[in-house]
Amino acid sequence: MDYQPTGGVSWSQDWDPTTTITIKVKEQLHCETSPYQKLEFFDSETYGRFFTLDGLMMVNEKDEFVYHEMISHVAMATNPGIKRILIIGGGDGGTSRELARYGSVEHIDMVELDERVVRLCQQYLPYTAGHLEKEDRIDLHFRDGCKFVEEADDESYDLIVVDSTDPIGFGEGLFTKAFYENCYRILSDDGILVNQHESPYYAFHVHGMKRAYQRLDEIFPIAKVYQYHMPTYPSGHWLFGFASKKLDPIDDHYPEVWESLHLKTRYYNSNIHKGAFALPNFVLENLK
Amino acid sequence: MDYQPTGGVSWSQDWDPTTTITIKVKEQLHCETSPYQKLEFFDSETYGRFFTLDGLMMVNEKDEFVYHEMISHVAMATNPGIKRILIIGGGDGGTSRELARYGSVEHIDMVELDERVVRLCQQYLPYTAGHLEKEDRIDLHFRDGCKFVEEADDESYDLIVVDSTDPIGFGEGLFTKAFYENCYRILSDDGILVNQHESPYYAFHVHGMKRAYQRLDEIFPIAKVYQYHMPTYPSGHWLFGFASKKLDPIDDHYPEVWESLHLKTRYYNSNIHKGAFALPNFVLENLK
Repeated sequence: MDYQPTGGVSWSQDWDPTTTITIKVKEQLHCETSPYQKLEFFDSETYGRFFTLDGLMMVNEKDEFVYHEMISHVAMATNPGIKRILIIGGGDGGTSRELARYGSVEHIDMVELDERVVRLCQQYLPYTAGHLEKEDRIDLHFRDGCKFVEEADDESYDLIVVDSTDPIGFGEGLFTKAFYENCYRILSDDGILVNQHESPYYAFHVHGMKRAYQRLDEIFPIAKVYQYHMPTYPSGHWLFGFASKKLDPIDDHYPEVWESLHLKTRYYNSNIHKGAFALPNFVLENLK
Repeated sequence: MDYQPTGGVSWSQDWDPTTTITIKVKEQLHCETSPYQKLEFFDSETYGRFFTLDGLMMVNEKDEFVYHEMISHVAMATNPGIKRILIIGGGDGGTSRELARYGSVEHIDMVELDERVVRLCQQYLPYTAGHLEKEDRIDLHFRDGCKFVEEADDESYDLIVVDSTDPIGFGEGLFTKAFYENCYRILSDDGILVNQHESPYYAFHVHGMKRAYQRLDEIFPIAKVYQYHMPTYPSGHWLFGFASKKLDPIDDHYPEVWESLHLKTRYYNSNIHKGAFALPNFVLENLK
């Protein structure tokens, strides 16, 4: 990642060791290094305001809706009875914004290690974090997610969303077996876990994808993967994992209930719900 | 597009006016300007050999299979009786390679304006063009595609594949109403047309997508759009159009016949066939 404050003002991310994406920016709004990572906020013409962690694109105004709708609504449409939710990571607020749209949700615990992510997103990204101050069903916990699930009571959540960065550095604990075993234990009988599942294209992400799937498949009776188009993440071909004790995202999908809620979405719909689980052969082979 | 022969050797393409993708290359294998366009061939670590026209990525070894499988097999699995095929464009050979895998196909006319595209792909890209010399069911015509369909007999093809570049310059004729009217006329009663349908993400491609769809929808009783992940094209979120006189790609999809052929594919399968027609809401709204 290079921000060049003079001349051609631009931001870059290496998608793999030989591929770089460069975005012209209007200005850098903020830059700071927390105890955990480097946080930067930019404004741009095409992507609006965007937010990066250690030089990696996290959220931008143009396509964050794809990620946050797909990480949220697939589970909610499979089990419309979800009431108690745990979000691990997700400090930008986008995931809790989507989940808080359901009146039936009673409580959301959001566990984000780095408080500065939340505070700066509240300041610079009202489109993902603006609801956090107003929403009294959301409790913020600035703690390590692995510790949090270790200490949580059995069967205390209906949905866990692991909205994490890549499996490097302090995000690595969220890709371990111990973490997923605790997630299983603290989920209710019809509980669902959705996790950020990396990408099947560049070698680094393929490695993360395989690890993520291995964990789910070892521990949960149902472990599936679904895909979506996320143009500002490396390759644009990204995945989420869906794991549960008994609910299947296709067999137990009753679109009528979700559709009766009349939630306006820009990416997700009942056809996408089903279609996203149809994976290309090269992805299926890598998940074997 | 900039090829910098000294220092960091790289190739770049602007995906939109503020976004650039840059790929490190090992070497430029060839560069020439035909009467129609600038043709360049590179070798790279991540993408193998790749081919660009006027600075736009056309084909590379890493992900060409996605494009060529998806432009070919959806139609063939909807109507396994396809025998006579017309390909407009497609000079790299990848589309005819996939279609020639069907023993049931009797004849393929491939109409490419620029003979140099075919000849140089035969020289530099054996993975897409290697079969052209050996395959006697394929006739090459180095002519304007619009003229070709104007002069072709009524109902002379079962499948037309419009494997074109973006709707600019001499590719523009392939996005006109007159062209699609002729395609309709020369298609058999159960004929299918598949066209390169641009992308729903960046403004320039959204414009092309709307035009492409308008043409199909005006002329064909059935006009649908399907999506795929193509990481090396701008945004990675790309579309094909499917149009026909009477066959529907979902209602008339009988996967058993296609699966009985045991064609090995790396992206396409019968689930992807159905799933690819599930489009995000923002795409559906742009197609209205």
